Amino acid sequence: MTDLTMQDALNRLSAYWGGLGCLTVQPMNTEVGAGTLNPATALRVLGPEPWRVAYVEPSVRPDDARYGQNPNRIQCHTQYQVILKPEPGDAQELYLGSLAALGIDTTRHDVRFVEDNWASPALGAWGLGWEVWLDGLEITQFTYFQQAGGIALSPVSVEITYGMERILMALQGVRHFKDIEYAPGVSYGEVFGQAEYELSRYYLDDADVPTNRDLLAAYAAEAQRMIDAELPVPAHAFVLKMSHAFNVLDARGAVSTADRASEFARMRRLSNAVAKLWIKAREKEGFPLGQVAAPGTPEPAEPAPAATTGPQTLVFEIGVEEMPPGEARDARRQVEEALRARLESGRLAYGEVRVHATPRRVAAIVTDVAAREADAVRTVRGPRLSVAFTDGGPTPAALGFARSNGANAADLSTVTVDDVEYLCVEREEPGRPAVVALAEALSTVVGGLRSAKNMRWNDPELAFTRPIRSLVALWGDQVVPVTASTLRADRRVRVHRNAEQPVLAVASADAYLPTLADAGIMLDEAERRQTIVAAARAAAATVGGRLDVDGEAGLLDQIAFLVEGPSAIVGAFDAGYLSLPDAVLTTVMRKHQRYLPVRDAAGALLPHFVVIANGAIDPATVRAGNEAVLRARFEDAAFFYRTDRTTPVDAMRGRLHRLTFTDRLGSMADRADRTGALALRLAHGVPLDEVERRTLERAAELVKFDLGSQLVTEMTGLAGVIGRDYARHGGESAEVARAVFEAELPRQAGDELPASTAGALLALADRADALVGLAATVGLPTGSSDPFALRRAAVGAVAIHRGVPALAAVSLRDAFAAAAARQPVAVAEGTVDAVVEFVTRRLEQQLLDEGHPVDRVRAVLVHAARPSTADRVLAQLNETADSSDFRRLAAALQRARRIATSGAAYEPGVLTEPAERRLHETVVTAAARLPADAGIAELVEVDADELPAAVDAFFDDILVMADDPAVRARRLGLVGAVAALGDGVLDWPALRL
Amino acid sequence: MTDLTMQDALNRLSAYWGGLGCLTVQPMNTEVGAGTLNPATALRVLGPEPWRVAYVEPSVRPDDARYGQNPNRIQCHTQYQVILKPEPGDAQELYLGSLAALGIDTTRHDVRFVEDNWASPALGAWGLGWEVWLDGLEITQFTYFQQAGGIALSPVSVEITYGMERILMALQGVRHFKDIEYAPGVSYGEVFGQAEYELSRYYLDDADVPTNRDLLAAYAAEAQRMIDAELPVPAHAFVLKMSHAFNVLDARGAVSTADRASEFARMRRLSNAVAKLWIKAREKEGFPLGQVAAPGTPEPAEPAPAATTGPQTLVFEIGVEEMPPGEARDARRQVEEALRARLESGRLAYGEVRVHATPRRVAAIVTDVAAREADAVRTVRGPRLSVAFTDGGPTPAALGFARSNGANAADLSTVTVDDVEYLCVEREEPGRPAVVALAEALSTVVGGLRSAKNMRWNDPELAFTRPIRSLVALWGDQVVPVTASTLRADRRVRVHRNAEQPVLAVASADAYLPTLADAGIMLDEAERRQTIVAAARAAAATVGGRLDVDGEAGLLDQIAFLVEGPSAIVGAFDAGYLSLPDAVLTTVMRKHQRYLPVRDAAGALLPHFVVIANGAIDPATVRAGNEAVLRARFEDAAFFYRTDRTTPVDAMRGRLHRLTFTDRLGSMADRADRTGALALRLAHGVPLDEVERRTLERAAELVKFDLGSQLVTEMTGLAGVIGRDYARHGGESAEVARAVFEAELPRQAGDELPASTAGALLALADRADALVGLAATVGLPTGSSDPFALRRAAVGAVAIHRGVPALAAVSLRDAFAAAAARQPVAVAEGTVDAVVEFVTRRLEQQLLDEGHPVDRVRAVLVHAARPSTADRVLAQLNETADSSDFRRLAAALQRARRIATSGAAYEPGVLTEPAERRLHETVVTAAARLPADAGIAELVEVDADELPAAVDAFFDDILVMADDPAVRARRLGLVGAVAALGDGVLDWPALRL
Repeated sequence: MTDLTMQDALNRLSAYWGGLGCLTVQPMNTEVGAGTLNPATALRVLGPEPWRVAYVEPSVRPDDARYGQNPNRIQCHTQYQVILKPEPGDAQELYLGSLAALGIDTTRHDVRFVEDNWASPALGAWGLGWEVWLDGLEITQFTYFQQAGGIALSPVSVEITYGMERILMALQGVRHFKDIEYAPGVSYGEVFGQAEYELSRYYLDDADVPTNRDLLAAYAAEAQRMIDAELPVPAHAFVLKMSHAFNVLDARGAVSTADRASEFARMRRLSNAVAKLWIKAREKEGFPLGQVAAPGTPEPAEPAPAATTGPQTLVFEIGVEEMPPGEARDARRQVEEALRARLESGRLAYGEVRVHATPRRVAAIVTDVAAREADAVRTVRGPRLSVAFTDGGPTPAALGFARSNGANAADLSTVTVDDVEYLCVEREEPGRPAVVALAEALSTVVGGLRSAKNMRWNDPELAFTRPIRSLVALWGDQVVPVTASTLRADRRVRVHRNAEQPVLAVASADAYLPTLADAGIMLDEAERRQTIVAAARAAAATVGGRLDVDGEAGLLDQIAFLVEGPSAIVGAFDAGYLSLPDAVLTTVMRKHQRYLPVRDAAGALLPHFVVIANGAIDPATVRAGNEAVLRARFEDAAFFYRTDRTTPVDAMRGRLHRLTFTDRLGSMADRADRTGALALRLAHGVPLDEVERRTLERAAELVKFDLGSQLVTEMTGLAGVIGRDYARHGGESAEVARAVFEAELPRQAGDELPASTAGALLALADRADALVGLAATVGLPTGSSDPFALRRAAVGAVAIHRGVPALAAVSLRDAFAAAAARQPVAVAEGTVDAVVEFVTRRLEQQLLDEGHPVDRVRAVLVHAARPSTADRVLAQLNETADSSDFRRLAAALQRARRIATSGAAYEPGVLTEPAERRLHETVVTAAARLPADAGIAELVEVDADELPAAVDAFFDDILVMADDPAVRARRLGLVGAVAALGDGVLDWPALRL
Repeated sequence: MTDLTMQDALNRLSAYWGGLGCLTVQPMNTEVGAGTLNPATALRVLGPEPWRVAYVEPSVRPDDARYGQNPNRIQCHTQYQVILKPEPGDAQELYLGSLAALGIDTTRHDVRFVEDNWASPALGAWGLGWEVWLDGLEITQFTYFQQAGGIALSPVSVEITYGMERILMALQGVRHFKDIEYAPGVSYGEVFGQAEYELSRYYLDDADVPTNRDLLAAYAAEAQRMIDAELPVPAHAFVLKMSHAFNVLDARGAVSTADRASEFARMRRLSNAVAKLWIKAREKEGFPLGQVAAPGTPEPAEPAPAATTGPQTLVFEIGVEEMPPGEARDARRQVEEALRARLESGRLAYGEVRVHATPRRVAAIVTDVAAREADAVRTVRGPRLSVAFTDGGPTPAALGFARSNGANAADLSTVTVDDVEYLCVEREEPGRPAVVALAEALSTVVGGLRSAKNMRWNDPELAFTRPIRSLVALWGDQVVPVTASTLRADRRVRVHRNAEQPVLAVASADAYLPTLADAGIMLDEAERRQTIVAAARAAAATVGGRLDVDGEAGLLDQIAFLVEGPSAIVGAFDAGYLSLPDAVLTTVMRKHQRYLPVRDAAGALLPHFVVIANGAIDPATVRAGNEAVLRARFEDAAFFYRTDRTTPVDAMRGRLHRLTFTDRLGSMADRADRTGALALRLAHGVPLDEVERRTLERAAELVKFDLGSQLVTEMTGLAGVIGRDYARHGGESAEVARAVFEAELPRQAGDELPASTAGALLALADRADALVGLAATVGLPTGSSDPFALRRAAVGAVAIHRGVPALAAVSLRDAFAAAAARQPVAVAEGTVDAVVEFVTRRLEQQLLDEGHPVDRVRAVLVHAARPSTADRVLAQLNETADSSDFRRLAAALQRARRIATSGAAYEPGVLTEPAERRLHETVVTAAARLPADAGIAELVEVDADELPAAVDAFFDDILVMADDPAVRARRLGLVGAVAALGDGVLDWPALRL
């Protein structure tokens, strides 16, 4: 709580950043979606000139328009934007200073830098950085700007963007943006409320689509003209106008996927041209603001003479700005592998190696590292012996070799390599001091660090997930003179930023862990996780609740890499929110806030949550802050939930017409129509009672209707769950509601499967429609890119078939063909085959992942179109395959199949040889006894006795490939009849016997 | 000089106005031409809610684009905008406080409020106020906002708009806007220079005209749609976008006069609709910010008992915020007339009445005002006597009348009015004390003040040229309790705002003038003017120069009403600027800066000027400031002059194609073409030697070419003067250059006339083309509105004809007909007649103004088509008119003309009566003797002897209207022949004899 008004807050930020040399400029005089688009950022981050600027930017997001009714959503929010170019190396600390300038006591609050990778594909721009959380509230975007206008930035700028409404709502403790005190006695609502309502009306309801399309076209034309005229400033302004017109069209639901892609491509192309022209223009002016010089790299220090000759502990810490959890984990692994490799290949004796990571550091501790490397002898190879001596004396080549190695002719010996004799000399290599050897080794460890997505900062050589800012390297009490690009190791370790002393000197390697511990930092990730679990359990217990440790395993893994010094705080929320669906509450808690839900003994949610804070904070402050954030989030969800529930389900289904699936495949309503119709068609071969049939018919009308809800628009992961809830609320039967929900199952690998036949049919139809439609239009994924998640759809289709017995009779091939017939585009020949093949590969992988032998898996893939059949056959195979009966039978069939040619037939009457006759009779008898859908068991039962022997006898006695063509054809026909006995049961040749 | 950066300055203003309760908002997120257009002004000044706001507004004026090359001109300048609603009554003082906040010591500087009336016809907005001058530099617009969106504002807001670049250039002492220190170590040019260049390119050269037309149309459509949807906020935004698109088209020279008028009308209409909707929307919300209450009006105070019974001086001062000079002069007259009228009709004895005015006050001083009114007796009329008495006794009506007048029946007497007797009573009316009578009289004087353009301020009743803020009314040492609406008189007089005590108490009426004098204020305008002249002369003398007091009479009159306490400061400018044409320098000094030019004994300009400052200031500071302003102005002009002189005259003439004259009459190039061709045509009847002819031909090709120069675009009053200079510089002959100059003469009444025949022909052709073309398209002016200055054109045509003897043979009627033939539009029948009539009226007025008797003027208007002939005839008439010969002749002709009917003819042979025959012979003889172009002199010489007698004898003896139609026709024919003798010489019946 504060009496700081919004106006004051802006002034204070302005004064603070102004004091740090930032220019103040004005907001852009055309609508922009973010301060980034202002030329003071978008153009100035380009090129080599230094630049520091700070400004307010009212940022227009037509999509966020809510008529001013939603407490947290607003079509024009106020950004405060800071650019520091080059990034100064301590921007996080500078940023924390700005919070202090706003009166925020950062020693009491939980201020967190949470991974956030920013990209604007439309502008060819991206960067890596964080959301800054204040007690769980995202108040700032903090980005190391890597690319703009498609051009890699050098130097790299830091971009800091404050969300002023959020900050002020938190500071003033108000629950609706309109209640922010904007200036003394004047509320935000009074100043902006009317505009918020009216502009929401414009963006959501009243903007004329054809006019805005015309505007978009006109702006694009002017942008291109200005580029042709080599005028990047007006060109940029017109790109911004394009972007706004596009956003207006988007908010009006008038942008198809194809439009989006082509508009983004056009804006990206124009932005790139603008960027190039801007740099060119500045270059022409001679870069008036100067050019940022790359920072120098330090000379490696001479190591001090070792004070000891005994082994010592080595500590090596790489200090990094907050890494994403996955990257921290991976960095730990990289450092461990690289370090072990270096140590193993080196000549320093050492004891145990441990490597740990936190969000801000990767540290290795190696015990008993010797003071010096072991001495060694190295053989240096010289010229061939054949040219080293003539007439018994050494040639000049031999003498030169000796001289250059500091040896006499007498020291020369020979070595044989690949049968060739060479002159050689043995050189003694004395071991180096540990600090020298370690400095070299550790330097390569730092330089070798890489992440899945690397960034640059103000360093000429390094690249990593986030900037590496410090190195601590101690062997005993001695600093190991590691350098890596601009960095030089010392003994200064950075602890919590809000500690009284945020940088501490570590006396020796052995003092490292105690120093961290004293500062409240747990280095060991496993220990941190345990501590977190224990603390969270204890915290939950204080409110009579429990923690689902297994259910939250993924979240706990993540949290362990979000904090260095965990402490658990239990917070409460209004029990009234428990009336929202569980999934809504847990999605908000887990995904948005990384809170651990608290449940009662029966597993029901309690109105509590556990937040794991970092470092020494004031628990009451942090609790209150997080509670307010969660309340706002829940209020947001509740707002959508309440609003949605006033909309009849059929009306909501109607909104799907406004959502584009893809440009060629129509709206989401078209897709839902196809899905419903396809499910009804697939039901033809499936036994349904009357209730199931009626359920299916109604659910087919509603399927996917919840995509038209505001809640699912906000939290797409809740599709289905919300549909079930709204359908029940809307008066649908429990069965229909369940089928609507189950149509979305499974949502990811391992998720639950549809339990009802209606749900399963819809779910399968949904996947079939997506696979076939997209295969026919954009194609099936080949590389790593799979924007429409078709692999997941294929895996889902397989899982549904395998998991729902009622679908046993349904063939996926038939389903795909039926889906193909319903697409609004012509589906090319071969598409269904390709989809079947795509699905087959997924089934194969699933079966292999389940541990089945590859030959058996391949053998049953003849049943891939009915995965449940494949399952069944594979089970039989597993049961039978090792029996001698089966093996003999299989061998016989393989032998026959190896020779059999397709299309051969024979007249039994012409068979003359006894072995021929015997085989013929055996085959005829077997064929007669085999049921139509014979599986492996039947086959073994019928054929295992007689057939293998008859086959063996036949091949022993008879030359199939007789000279007489008639005889040959007859015999091939007989072999074919044998082979046919196994048809459709297995892919026999795939089996390894 | 200061180290205040632009950034600091904005922050200080923000802090200052924020401290006075102004909200800070952000600039508009679409291009606007001024802060006024931001909805925080444009919408918030509407309706009854209070509002205080201050913000920065980068203001885009495409017309002002100069590629960043001009030191003072910039397409996007930075306004700082303040709105105080309601106007607080002391906004001027608050504003001066803001200058102090910028570190400007207002006690050292000459801060002046110089009349400026602001109007935006496109937005239906206007206001009255001032430019604020800091040592001659316009730094702020200060406006009482009267109307917005076509709606009268109540309450009235004060709008204060700072021009930040100007202020910073002055404070930092830099000569180019790019050199402003924007932030420590960063120049304005570094921040905005690139954009300034590129956006200038866009606005001036590269903006696509069809695309911007499309944008204008699209914005207009959206604006209308939003109005239909009752959404004023987005509608307003689209009106702003329209306005910007229009400005872009205008800067590209793509707006015709007709376009301009229709676009302004459309924007005005839309703005009006927006304004109404906004007020409606706020009303619907219940005016959340409250409603401004009208200030209360004070009760008149009871006058204290007079301390004296003797006569005393009366002082009555009306304190007004700075009045425009003309209004101050007129207010003085109004107050004097009203006061004299009241005093004369009242019963207070008084001595002398003097009324004076300064910019800030009108004060009356009346000597020897008696302490009481004279007593009086008043007769009150009652009922008619006939109903007042019955049977000898008074009726109830009579008794009631007596009672109501506090009289007895015995006091009743009678009075006769219009021959009716009434009952009456004589009432004694004792005189009131002076202060009571004066309070009443003076109150009506205040309430009756009016100006040519009145404004409202935060007063429920008063309306005047500028707000009336104080009343001082003293009779002797006693305050006269005058009230006028919210004002109440007291003894506090407001002296210079930068005085140590800006408000002084005046002990008594007699102390008033000494108090003003002590404060350095000269009340008497004549005395001020004398002081100014003397001081300016003395100042000029210090640099060896002289003042052209007669030449600067108009400017001196104006200055006398711009200052209350004049002091002359002589400033210098770089002698290098003397290479600019005199007219350029004097136009800048006089019109823009109100500086008095200083000349040497020969009349040549010296590099000095005299500025008359106001009040106690620091001369060195004020001199330096004014010198800097003049330097910037001269630099601006020199910039244009240098640039222009690199353009060949024919190329400059070519630019006239880009300037529109009117939509139907084509470009200025078309107009110049017509003018040249017409001049050549008119030359047919004019004697020209070979040189004159060649001069005319070349000048006809160039006429008006200087309208294509930047200098004339900036200073339209210099058209012609600059043409002469550029033509000479461009290698034209002196004669051609002179003709180009003279084509523009006379520029106003009393201006010099063309001296060369070529110049005169071009000048006449120019007026003829304008008069006929505009009469045919927009019509001749009828009311006070004369946007194309056709009255001046007509006056000019008359003056040229009268003043240039070579044109004597040219008929204006012929000229107009020839002009009509050259118009690009069909000229309706009667148009030439109408133009001749229009010109005739101007000639009539000129001749009357020259003092000629009205009948003689009217009599010579038959020659209006050749004004020089009218002159000549009028001179003859004046010489002859009083001679008896002329009078008798005129009487005879008038007598004949009164009877004559047109078209009558007669056969002389049939005349029978002697008087008939005598008259016939006289007429025939006279007609034979009269030359073809007989003037008055010839007429008198030929006819004066015989004709009058013959006419008299004819009428005495003959009955013209005989019964026999043949006889009657014959006699009428004869009379007609007499009348015809005077044809074409004068309009005889108009003469009064």
